[in-house]
Amino acid sequence: MSRQSFLLKIDKSPDIQSNLQLSLQNKFSGLLTTIVDDGYKRILLDEKVAERQQCFTRSPLIFKANDWLYSIFPMINMTNILDSSSSEVRKNYKLLLDQEFNFINHVKPRGYYYIRPTCEPETVAKFLLEKIEKTGNDLIFIVEIELHSQKNYTRMYRRDLSPIEEDIEDTWMYWNAIHKAANYHQRIEVAIVLSSDLPSNELEIYRWFGEPVIMLVIPHNTFTTNSSNFPVMTKKQQEIVKMFMQNLKLYIVIEPKSSSDHRIKSYLEYIEYLSKSLDRSSEEEKDCLKYPLQPLHDNLDFSTYEVFERDPAKYILYQRAIENALKDMISEEEKETRKAIVLLVGAGRGPLIRSTLNAATNTHKKVKIIAVEKNPNAIVTLTCLIKQLWPDKEIELIAKDMRNIVLEEKADILVSELLGSFGDNELSPECLDGVQHLLKPTGVSIPANSKSYIQPIMTKRTYGQVQKRKGENKKREMHSEHTEVNWLIYSTNIFHIDNFKEVFTFVHPNNDNPIDNSRYGKFHFESSIDCILHGFSGYFSSKLYKDIEISIVPDSHTKGMISWYSVFFPIATPIQLKKGDKIEVEFWRKCNTEKVWYEWKVNAPEETIVHNLNGEIHPIFLA
Amino acid sequence: MSRQSFLLKIDKSPDIQSNLQLSLQNKFSGLLTTIVDDGYKRILLDEKVAERQQCFTRSPLIFKANDWLYSIFPMINMTNILDSSSSEVRKNYKLLLDQEFNFINHVKPRGYYYIRPTCEPETVAKFLLEKIEKTGNDLIFIVEIELHSQKNYTRMYRRDLSPIEEDIEDTWMYWNAIHKAANYHQRIEVAIVLSSDLPSNELEIYRWFGEPVIMLVIPHNTFTTNSSNFPVMTKKQQEIVKMFMQNLKLYIVIEPKSSSDHRIKSYLEYIEYLSKSLDRSSEEEKDCLKYPLQPLHDNLDFSTYEVFERDPAKYILYQRAIENALKDMISEEEKETRKAIVLLVGAGRGPLIRSTLNAATNTHKKVKIIAVEKNPNAIVTLTCLIKQLWPDKEIELIAKDMRNIVLEEKADILVSELLGSFGDNELSPECLDGVQHLLKPTGVSIPANSKSYIQPIMTKRTYGQVQKRKGENKKREMHSEHTEVNWLIYSTNIFHIDNFKEVFTFVHPNNDNPIDNSRYGKFHFESSIDCILHGFSGYFSSKLYKDIEISIVPDSHTKGMISWYSVFFPIATPIQLKKGDKIEVEFWRKCNTEKVWYEWKVNAPEETIVHNLNGEIHPIFLA
Repeated sequence: MSRQSFLLKIDKSPDIQSNLQLSLQNKFSGLLTTIVDDGYKRILLDEKVAERQQCFTRSPLIFKANDWLYSIFPMINMTNILDSSSSEVRKNYKLLLDQEFNFINHVKPRGYYYIRPTCEPETVAKFLLEKIEKTGNDLIFIVEIELHSQKNYTRMYRRDLSPIEEDIEDTWMYWNAIHKAANYHQRIEVAIVLSSDLPSNELEIYRWFGEPVIMLVIPHNTFTTNSSNFPVMTKKQQEIVKMFMQNLKLYIVIEPKSSSDHRIKSYLEYIEYLSKSLDRSSEEEKDCLKYPLQPLHDNLDFSTYEVFERDPAKYILYQRAIENALKDMISEEEKETRKAIVLLVGAGRGPLIRSTLNAATNTHKKVKIIAVEKNPNAIVTLTCLIKQLWPDKEIELIAKDMRNIVLEEKADILVSELLGSFGDNELSPECLDGVQHLLKPTGVSIPANSKSYIQPIMTKRTYGQVQKRKGENKKREMHSEHTEVNWLIYSTNIFHIDNFKEVFTFVHPNNDNPIDNSRYGKFHFESSIDCILHGFSGYFSSKLYKDIEISIVPDSHTKGMISWYSVFFPIATPIQLKKGDKIEVEFWRKCNTEKVWYEWKVNAPEETIVHNLNGEIHPIFLA
Repeated sequence: MSRQSFLLKIDKSPDIQSNLQLSLQNKFSGLLTTIVDDGYKRILLDEKVAERQQCFTRSPLIFKANDWLYSIFPMINMTNILDSSSSEVRKNYKLLLDQEFNFINHVKPRGYYYIRPTCEPETVAKFLLEKIEKTGNDLIFIVEIELHSQKNYTRMYRRDLSPIEEDIEDTWMYWNAIHKAANYHQRIEVAIVLSSDLPSNELEIYRWFGEPVIMLVIPHNTFTTNSSNFPVMTKKQQEIVKMFMQNLKLYIVIEPKSSSDHRIKSYLEYIEYLSKSLDRSSEEEKDCLKYPLQPLHDNLDFSTYEVFERDPAKYILYQRAIENALKDMISEEEKETRKAIVLLVGAGRGPLIRSTLNAATNTHKKVKIIAVEKNPNAIVTLTCLIKQLWPDKEIELIAKDMRNIVLEEKADILVSELLGSFGDNELSPECLDGVQHLLKPTGVSIPANSKSYIQPIMTKRTYGQVQKRKGENKKREMHSEHTEVNWLIYSTNIFHIDNFKEVFTFVHPNNDNPIDNSRYGKFHFESSIDCILHGFSGYFSSKLYKDIEISIVPDSHTKGMISWYSVFFPIATPIQLKKGDKIEVEFWRKCNTEKVWYEWKVNAPEETIVHNLNGEIHPIFLA
């Protein structure tokens, strides 16, 4: 889905064949439609189901198996007859639905099944769980939910409702009740139907970004007609559609008035036009969940270095920081006589050597570089680079752990890139503490500090991915307590429940005596709307030198810097939040002689366990 | 790999960059070469390893990570220095190899590693197992083995060998010793090097088809030059290369004299030309392992029916059988007055209705078809077909299990297609016994019989796949005793140890009283060469009517018939066989009121367990 995918929705298909052709000719990926005739079903309610089973739909042979599998997206209506007070009616309708389901499952045993419910949430959940039990993991149910409830429309046929009733239903409540009753099953996702009216509270829209939304349905009546007689949307609606396309991997479902709506192509072109203004460059990586690197424990491999070096922003900022430090340190008068000793710890395949050499050239200052690297495989590369590219530069290579080296002369500048997504989570403080005695008293460290941040989030998809990792038994992922690991995530399928808050700070060089790198904090947030707390996003920012900063905090993210995902601290059991609920959470950074680890615990509105107690689940090893 | 894939092999690459370019320009998939300089390694034997580690190869930065991952196939020489009597030399060489390995693993953490050993089999196995332990499942080791040992060449530098020594080494023994010592690890595969001399015993070639061969290396000296000055092969060598390409999914590795061998393109074109005459139509499906269908227990889905109906041979033979039966049954005089009642059990989506209607039309006989089908989803299709395609034909549809139907008038012809790959393994006998009382005493059954066959085989790859299925927990595959299931396989990566033997026969209608569908037999085979017994292939043949037969037995496989894979009855522990070893195996077909099952047990040359005892592992359910 790197290009936006589209589906055509035509509820009733008297001629499903020509409708599929219509959709494919117009470059839709497929047709979303009911398979079983409604007329037949209505009759059935009065008759015996078993005897009529032989002709309840059109022949499935109109399509090849592959058409069914890949181009047809079946829709199942699940009306409130399922809640009928008559057990006879209820049973008969359930039999009908079962038959419809079995037939669809026969022609299309996997893929997406689109469910349009108008019955009680518990009834929907029960039905879906029953079917999930009987089918394979590659069958996903999509529940249709309107972005905004159209009460007025409902009133047109519900004569029992008073016409002055004003309370607008929050449709998320209905969805959440279904999903909760189905134990948030990961094989149940959502289709959001755009409406011409929009919720007055924008958070009601943003909250969907925390849900597993897989389709955005755009009905014909959300379009108006412009002066050139083309279908267009309001600014606000355009924005919403773009946000959905930008943040979520989903199908855009176009719902024309009927199959003879002559504007089908125009709807599609309009949305395609909207999608063109979006940045889809990192689409492929989206919804990525990774176990954090442990660079002190493992040696990074060649391609990991390559990916890091590809960052277009990071090394330019490092270079600028080194330039400024050189300028401050060596005056114009001294520049022929003085040479700055740059101690570069964690040289990898040499990007910071390059930044330092560039900085020296640009500022016309002399430098001697001492490059330290513990990975013997990276040393091979560095040796070749120095021999081939920089034979005339003063570069000394030390193939050791930075915490064990000895220098004849102390350094003027200590340069490192040891920061993780949560700042100190790759043990930058411990490493720099171990080497800072080699820095002159007047020396500077680049970076000069690091800060971490957390933010409460709702993210069912990421949380679901975390749960799926359970039982994985790769080398570094031996823990089944998957919800007590601070994962790395790259996802925009997230709703931010409140603003972020600063957590821990580390300053380099660290002049404390004794040095204590353990930390603790208690943080408070407030829920802006009814939603679910799945855990906390973690970010970092760092001052490299004076005003030169790098950051992955949402508000101030360094432009173009791609090296870091966010951190995700899940909680063992998601918490249902009411609007205005106060969230209190405690975070610890703990250390012993072998490892460093984080612990976290929510105190309010509900108390959780202490996650990663004693670092038993997710230790960060010191060696 | 649906088109044949080629690699270029250049052992020593002083200029690895231009060699890679050479290979890609000539449309090879990649370059097979050593990464670490041999010269460096020789020096190292006398020096301290640690101090020189900084420059033991060329810079890895000459390639991007993706080149390393996808285009470079590293080769590691593992000489008999590893078996040196001096523990100092041994240790030093091991350190060197470790360093070489670690560096390769740094630039290319997964993919194929080509190992060229000249040391003791146990030494090779130990080294590989040690590395397997430390790396991921996506790293595969390939051990280079010569198809035919070139003793004479060896003698050129081994002055200690008497020049008259005649015994030619069987290279499979060396490989088998390595693989056995490595416990047949599935991450160890083979590269076979073609030679100008060939083994005199052809079985020594065929036996490799039971091994996980992933590369066939063709050195330049296997080519001769024809009158037009083009490289060509002998007829026999052509045959061997073709057999390898036809039967195995592998890389063809071209090994020129050197990178300046001007015939590189000609070698490639020659082999490509050979590959063009091969049938690669079913390439994608190859090496496929499936859990057998249980059509009595589960309803088949739409696409399964579609695949079966696509068979170009089966339904034509059924049609011909029905034609012949109609001709024998109804004389020309009767053809206006008499109508044959054809009872069609298991009608599916109607292919046999079509065959019957065609047969009636072709023979100008009248038929009434009674089509029985228990799958309600297939009934939907049949109903539509009858309504739309055959409204004027006499077709009665009965939506029931064939064992429970009642007819007003008995049938003349009973037609069914209930045979599995082992004939009776989808319970064709039980089903037909249950319906044959509806056949007139003069009536015939199509098919008239079924026979099963077994054949002892060596097939490491398939056996490995069976082992991988362990722990899978899909609905129908809940058993961990994966070696006690009679799997369906489609593979040509198999060596047939001896000819097949007939096992069980069933005749329809069955006039025995009482009917007993249990069976037992004891069968004897002989090993034609040293090899390994992994289990037994199973096949079937069936007489449809008089001389019209269908068969999947290798010698008499019905041309173009694609509906059936073979069966694979694995044994719990593979047995090493010596040439001439007698194999005795017992097979049981057992039945009770709920299920049918097979048991099998090898008695000689070694005794195994009774596989699938009491049908607890792999029952075939009667309902």
